[in-house]
Amino acid sequence: MPQEVGKQYSALLQKYIQHEDETDLYAAQQVSRKFIEKKISPEEVISLHKTSVEEIFPELAVKIGPSYDFLIEVMIHYGLALMEHQSLIRKQE
Amino acid sequence: MPQEVGKQYSALLQKYIQHEDETDLYAAQQVSRKFIEKKISPEEVISLHKTSVEEIFPELAVKIGPSYDFLIEVMIHYGLALMEHQSLIRKQE
Repeated sequence: MPQEVGKQYSALLQKYIQHEDETDLYAAQQVSRKFIEKKISPEEVISLHKTSVEEIFPELAVKIGPSYDFLIEVMIHYGLALMEHQSLIRKQE
Repeated sequence: MPQEVGKQYSALLQKYIQHEDETDLYAAQQVSRKFIEKKISPEEVISLHKTSVEEIFPELAVKIGPSYDFLIEVMIHYGLALMEHQSLIRKQE
């Protein structure tokens, strides 16, 4: 995960949590496109999201941390399905 | 999202949060396989996860809810990439 993209994600998430402005959700979709281009897996995104939320709400880290670990496990298979997709696309090119 | 699968997810997540037992993470991976088979999108999983976490920690719902809404937006593109994958597989069959 490139550090710059991670920082951009955290900053955007913090901004959204503060103002709940719809335009930041649109920006989230753009970031997401960039993630997929850079072949960042969905479980890496959840991991980044966990770190970002824990930075924004440090007092909740112990309480909600394990729920994210669970979600990361769940997303691993989605990541595998996507990798399979990217390899199919390469074969067709 | 079939109701039964949703209930199974919530129960498993709650169990993992209580005991942080590695075997529940293994069960999470099995649930995840079932989700993919049933063509449940990653954003639907995040939405289910949000509901489950809010049931487990109702006092945190207002505080952490928006962070999940943001994550759902981010996952929408991953869902689209997967749908494209499933349609490629159908074409090859």
